[in-house]
Formats: sequence, C-alpha cells, structure tokens
Amino acid sequence: MLKKIDHIGFAVHSIARTRVLYEEALGLVCERVEEVAAQKVRTAFFRLGETRIELLEPTAPDSPIARFLEKRGEGIHHIGYQSDDLDRDLARARDQGCTLINPEPVTGAGGRRIAFLHPRSTHGVLTELCEAGRAEQPPDPEDQP
Amino acid sequence: MLKKIDHIGFAVHSIARTRVLYEEALGLVCERVEEVAAQKVRTAFFRLGETRIELLEPTAPDSPIARFLEKRGEGIHHIGYQSDDLDRDLARARDQGCTLINPEPVTGAGGRRIAFLHPRSTHGVLTELCEAGRAEQPPDPEDQP
Repeated sequence: MLKKIDHIGFAVHSIARTRVLYEEALGLVCERVEEVAAQKVRTAFFRLGETRIELLEPTAPDSPIARFLEKRGEGIHHIGYQSDDLDRDLARARDQGCTLINPEPVTGAGGRRIAFLHPRSTHGVLTELCEAGRAEQPPDPEDQP
Repeated sequence: MLKKIDHIGFAVHSIARTRVLYEEALGLVCERVEEVAAQKVRTAFFRLGETRIELLEPTAPDSPIARFLEKRGEGIHHIGYQSDDLDRDLARARDQGCTLINPEPVTGAGGRRIAFLHPRSTHGVLTELCEAGRAEQPPDPEDQP
C-alpha cells in the first residue's frame, strides 16, 4: 500500500544556485547532499513535514537529468510514493496496465529499493515507488536484544 | 512558515479517464470532485498521508489548464505548500526575488486563500502557497463555548 508522498524530484542545472530559493525564499533546511553515481546525479534533500524536496543536478552530460533539462528545462521531474510493500504495489501497477521502467526494483538514493513507472502510462507523470528509508522502517525483530 | 506539501496538482485531459490510474493502479481513494469556476477547472482530490493529489481538468478552452495541456501535455502542473502565515511567507518569497503571480492572495479550491509564484523565478516549478483548510486550522477561541 502507498503510505505517503516520499519526495518530489526537481531537475535543476545547479544545486548551489537553486538552494538559495528553497533556503532563503521558502525557509526550508537542507538535510543532506548526496551523489548517486549509478544515476549520474547529485541530490540535495530538504525535509518538509513527512515528505522531502529532492533537487537533482546532473553530474555527466549523458545523465537522464541532463537529457531532461535539455528537452524540458528546469522543473518538476518526478513524484516518489512510499510503499510498505514495494513488490506488491509494483505488481498491481503492472497488472493495471502501467509500463514499468524498472520491472525489478533498483537501488536509489539512500540505498533504498525503488522502481519507476513510465510517464506514458501515468498521464505524463514520471512516478517512482520506493521503500521506506532505514530510519523510517519498523525495527527488525532480529535486531532486538 | 511552510508546514508541509499541501497538494500536488496534475494537469489531465479527463478526470474520468485518469482516476482509474490513481484508484486501481495506485490504490488511492478519491475524496471529492469540485469545480473551481474562477479557474475554469474541475478538480479531484486523492488523500495520501498528510498531502493530496489534485487532478485538474479544464472546463473551458481558455482555462489556464487547457493552455498548459496544449503546450506541455498531461503532467505535473504545480506544487502547493501549506503555510501557517501566508502573508508573511509570500512577503519573504517576494523580498528574496520571487515573482508573484498573485501579489495578493486569491480564493482557491475549498475557499482557501492561495497565491502562486511564477516558475521563471522558482527554477521552473509553478509554486503555490496556501493556507490550511478549515478542517485543519486550529480552532478559533471565539468559536469555543
């Protein structure tokens, strides 16, 4: 089941130039900056309530974000929904006709399992389903003393 | 201060054709459908955690959503941030260089005061600031017995 909006990803040319907007004009606090080598992006996260704003800056000309910026310019790139059962939610989306960019989950920022649905099957919205981050997951009974 | 993502607005050709995706493929529940005559749109809200997905369907060819669809096709239209002091948050955004589409708040869906920031001043993201809905606002002491 989808539990909440986990994050909203914005494609930007430069995190350094964009964070001024989120920090000074909107008053948010940057939580962390992280490079995701597999996606060729640098990311910056701003927490807001139960969700996060994620700025995405390309680190290579062939990064998917670089191609997005070239085609569409800066703007909203994707919506990430947090799931408490990623495999089941992904299977339901597929069974209901969604095209999966990742038929099997891959590893995203923070080491979480994620998968994208293709925007041509979701009315133009690049849609990510992701598991809860480690800090948000219920404790594993095996870890209890 | 901004408290949370209030809603995310998606521009769609038809709520009837799009709600299947959110209901069947993603498992969300439609809360209400409402027409906002001033904006020439029909809206459908799906609650998810503390935020909402808002589908926006034009009700006239000169609706801002109709123009968006013509230019960009279906997709993410805007992000709405909930503020506990709309006038102050709007003034700060303006003072920090944001261009206000609504220098004074206007009335949006649900009768709330809202104001938009222009995407050319927010790195391509059409940004809405809005007050809490009536049900979410702290009780007015005058209303107490």
